[in-house]
Amino acid sequence: MDMIYLLDLAGTAVFAISGVQVAGQMRMDPFGATVLAAVTAIGGGTIRDAVLDVGPAFWVHDPTYLTVIILTSLLTILFANRSHRMPPILLPLADAAGLALFTVIGTQKALAYGAPGMTAVVMGVITGVAGGIIRDLLASRVPMVLQKDIYATASVLGGVVYTGALALGITEGLAMLLAMTGVFTLRMAAVHWHLRLPIFVLKHHRE
Amino acid sequence: MDMIYLLDLAGTAVFAISGVQVAGQMRMDPFGATVLAAVTAIGGGTIRDAVLDVGPAFWVHDPTYLTVIILTSLLTILFANRSHRMPPILLPLADAAGLALFTVIGTQKALAYGAPGMTAVVMGVITGVAGGIIRDLLASRVPMVLQKDIYATASVLGGVVYTGALALGITEGLAMLLAMTGVFTLRMAAVHWHLRLPIFVLKHHRE
Amino acid sequence: MDMIYLLDLAGTAVFAISGVQVAGQMRMDPFGATVLAAVTAIGGGTIRDAVLDVGPAFWVHDPTYLTVIILTSLLTILFANRSHRMPPILLPLADAAGLALFTVIGTQKALAYGAPGMTAVVMGVITGVAGGIIRDLLASRVPMVLQKDIYATASVLGGVVYTGALALGITEGLAMLLAMTGVFTLRMAAVHWHLRLPIFVLKHHRE
Repeated sequence: MDMIYLLDLAGTAVFAISGVQVAGQMRMDPFGATVLAAVTAIGGGTIRDAVLDVGPAFWVHDPTYLTVIILTSLLTILFANRSHRMPPILLPLADAAGLALFTVIGTQKALAYGAPGMTAVVMGVITGVAGGIIRDLLASRVPMVLQKDIYATASVLGGVVYTGALALGITEGLAMLLAMTGVFTLRMAAVHWHLRLPIFVLKHHRE
Repeated sequence: MDMIYLLDLAGTAVFAISGVQVAGQMRMDPFGATVLAAVTAIGGGTIRDAVLDVGPAFWVHDPTYLTVIILTSLLTILFANRSHRMPPILLPLADAAGLALFTVIGTQKALAYGAPGMTAVVMGVITGVAGGIIRDLLASRVPMVLQKDIYATASVLGGVVYTGALALGITEGLAMLLAMTGVFTLRMAAVHWHLRLPIFVLKHHRE
Repeated sequence: MDMIYLLDLAGTAVFAISGVQVAGQMRMDPFGATVLAAVTAIGGGTIRDAVLDVGPAFWVHDPTYLTVIILTSLLTILFANRSHRMPPILLPLADAAGLALFTVIGTQKALAYGAPGMTAVVMGVITGVAGGIIRDLLASRVPMVLQKDIYATASVLGGVVYTGALALGITEGLAMLLAMTGVFTLRMAAVHWHLRLPIFVLKHHRE
């Protein structure tokens, strides 16, 4: 489990960075930015834990998560204006990895608490995308994950693959690997080719 | 209780439809629309269950709710562009019925867990309107229920009637019927005649 | 503890007034205003209690909180258009006092449930500012506390002072006094001199 814990912290850092990025676009001060980073990084898992009613949220008794968020935020702010020196593909790559990991961890946790498969998939999606949704709400913009190239869809896929693989008798390690690879690949393909599902439009609606 | 369970599922379907409608106006893809449908349909009850701390949210161990939401969303999307063939009064009617039912179920659940009457009324309101509020937040618009013709007010009335009727010794079935009829009638009257409570305006406020 | 309980109710009233104020700017009806008042006054503590998983939210079994909110809202609405007769400094004073108190109460509660210091500080911030954030989200504006003169920062300071003072062996009463004075003074100084932390801006970001 050490490996998963480390990956979880890495996902936390990545989502914290995306929170700081949005804060920078909104001209927030460093404390506001750290708040936005925390909401993005642990918001989804916190909602999951409250809905499943599994006890205090996962970060309450393990200050490592908050420490990672604070350090990541400070470093990101310090290097903010130099960030164009990073190859621009780095962040989407890390974000897709975070989405893949959080989705699988959320699904796993729900199954561990005896939730049915369908609920577990929903918990994976909540864990993967809810933090980003709250970040966007606080920043007064329509949540990206609801509109942009395949995002929530990749998270749904990951939960389905993971749950389905376990049901087929595949070992947990392999199921995780399959699911995470699926999420990551689909999300990166969507970023690269701007893949979208067809939208639908309501022509006639009541007002 | 079978009757109540069926009505609860019907209310879930109705609120899911309203989520898909908003998604269609925002040009979302089918997954985004289903997310919005789910938030609208089970968001209020989920918050209620977390605040009351009654264990996992009501839909966690009963996948029927999610199944209803997914099927309703798919059907609504498929028939989206034909929806003008439905008489336009159908949806407000169904929505008012959903509000009536969710209000009473929420009040009932809170009382069953020993909450005082005033708290129970608040829980009814949360169950009836919070899902729609979150839906509107995700769609970046001022929540309808806070501004429109009598809506939250009808929900408050329903909780008061239900709680008061029980306190007067009226049987549970009759109390439910009275409360639901009250919510439904007041809401439909508000839709028909555009009833509003008088608003108030602050002329002088700090900035 | 009676003193703290009374102060807590006073903080509830103060935050309820700020909710009604925002409602008045949005032309809401009295019920909408009371909903906004309640969200502002008990939203933060409710989230704290759900995240800590300490049982039903603090106001569920004590209707005094809801009573205070409803009475405060009605009185504020009745006197709304006369509010310019109050010296304009009164509200910021009361708001800063509420922030000071809620921050310390939130930190205290988290420590009482065995949370580490860093988590307790975060819980103080949630208790102090989350209600106002939700109020602003419902009113479709960027949350003030994330952008305005030092606000969340004052709350962080209060939690750190309180937790640090206890760790140094200072008695609880004195620690509370120190922390609340710190929050209150810093916040009022920020209001008076428009103090802000330096913001940072991201010049280059992905879109």
